[in-house]
Amino acid sequence: MTAQELFEQIRRKRSFLCVGLDTDLKKVPQHLLGEEDPLFEFNKAVIEATAPYCVAYKPNLAFYEAAGVKGWNALVKTVRHLRDRYPEQFIIADAKRGDIGNTSQMYARVFFQEMDVDAVTLSPYMGSDTAEPFYAYAGKWAVLLALTSNASAQDFETLRLENGEMLYERVLKSSMDWGTENNTMYVVGATRAEELQRVRAIVPDHFLLVPGVGAQGGSLEEVAKYGMNRQCGLLVNSSRGIIYASSGRDFAEAAAQAARALQTQMETLLERGGVL
Amino acid sequence: MTAQELFEQIRRKRSFLCVGLDTDLKKVPQHLLGEEDPLFEFNKAVIEATAPYCVAYKPNLAFYEAAGVKGWNALVKTVRHLRDRYPEQFIIADAKRGDIGNTSQMYARVFFQEMDVDAVTLSPYMGSDTAEPFYAYAGKWAVLLALTSNASAQDFETLRLENGEMLYERVLKSSMDWGTENNTMYVVGATRAEELQRVRAIVPDHFLLVPGVGAQGGSLEEVAKYGMNRQCGLLVNSSRGIIYASSGRDFAEAAAQAARALQTQMETLLERGGVL
Repeated sequence: MTAQELFEQIRRKRSFLCVGLDTDLKKVPQHLLGEEDPLFEFNKAVIEATAPYCVAYKPNLAFYEAAGVKGWNALVKTVRHLRDRYPEQFIIADAKRGDIGNTSQMYARVFFQEMDVDAVTLSPYMGSDTAEPFYAYAGKWAVLLALTSNASAQDFETLRLENGEMLYERVLKSSMDWGTENNTMYVVGATRAEELQRVRAIVPDHFLLVPGVGAQGGSLEEVAKYGMNRQCGLLVNSSRGIIYASSGRDFAEAAAQAARALQTQMETLLERGGVL
Repeated sequence: MTAQELFEQIRRKRSFLCVGLDTDLKKVPQHLLGEEDPLFEFNKAVIEATAPYCVAYKPNLAFYEAAGVKGWNALVKTVRHLRDRYPEQFIIADAKRGDIGNTSQMYARVFFQEMDVDAVTLSPYMGSDTAEPFYAYAGKWAVLLALTSNASAQDFETLRLENGEMLYERVLKSSMDWGTENNTMYVVGATRAEELQRVRAIVPDHFLLVPGVGAQGGSLEEVAKYGMNRQCGLLVNSSRGIIYASSGRDFAEAAAQAARALQTQMETLLERGGVL
């Protein structure tokens, strides 16, 4: 998918919502546990309920790996289901891989060829060698960690370099040479909305994947104010606030409601930003 | 496993070799492809052949994920086989994960509780939040990327900070407060043997996991010269040079030969270093 195609989806849906599929067997409603594949049944229901209100889904790999072979199966089935039924949705494998060489090639093949997602999150520590193999797939994306919303982001991400830049700023600048606005996004945490300004000064045109709205406490309004560009340029993720909005039999309706509430806010913000 | 126990294995085996299980279906000898689980059969044979000459195994997760559900199964079986038959071997899941919070907790649970490996490689970009959940498991290890041997390590790892330190030096210094010598190792690339001196100046007592001897061209002698401490403090990995030493029916014997050749060199270096 190109940036333009993603932007068209955002306009069509009047939403820049990404639903995080952090699906945990311990949190799946009781009544689904008797199903042959509860993780997949849960995802299928959540997707059906939320698809009208979002443009992207982000399965978090850790949750599927935690369920072993069954989890991996559920993930593969979820991606296939999205591809078949909701081909307009952008799928991000939240894997935060950060390897090099033939290992990175392997990961690219797993996610882009075998699983057929649109994007993979990557840790930039080892440099361009990590991302390069992912750029070999046309229409696919690398989503690089830049500035994250966790407390220990200050351990390294915001360290000052000898030229006065912070490390995450250098990550943004260096990686602009690796790919383009059509194959590179950045993870920027929403709890640091004012820092979105600094990010936008460096990467005015790239899409940003913003986690941390909802459970992690970021403000959607702030994110839009400092992060939105003419083509929206934002995917804002919410995971637990949507998929676990209810732990009962009404989990899918509750997820729809939570997603719709965010979509409504986003519609206002897109209008205010002159994007719609 | 404690650092002392690992050291005892090194003395007993007269080796600090780690065998990298980068097992690729495309490189597994032809005659194994008819087996029900060729990846596992290959690993089993390689392990049986090399176990006398090494103290650790390092399955590379990408290779198993690339084979989908069958790959994940083969990995789980390989770890179980090692635990049952070779309980003295140190098992490192080379996953290079780098997430936080409940995601990092999930990965820790997957690798330490469900799969029962001894150690996991982690990317430090997001700071201490990445490693913390792994330290909750007694006797288990976090292996943090510090200075890697790939070309683009210079993109960020060797950047100078405002106080003159390089980023990887700061990673070493900061992370010394996260864990101890009994639960933290560092990945330090062997193609930069002279930089092992700088690393040792900061972390004199920690174990270092050194990839890049063999296919990536590092010199074992240099690594030992600059990196060995009184308790050896080194695990040197070789993957392709051992497991693909032959692509024929003699792959296991060839692997044994390659591993033994390294073990013989290591024995000399351990004696020279005053460790044996």
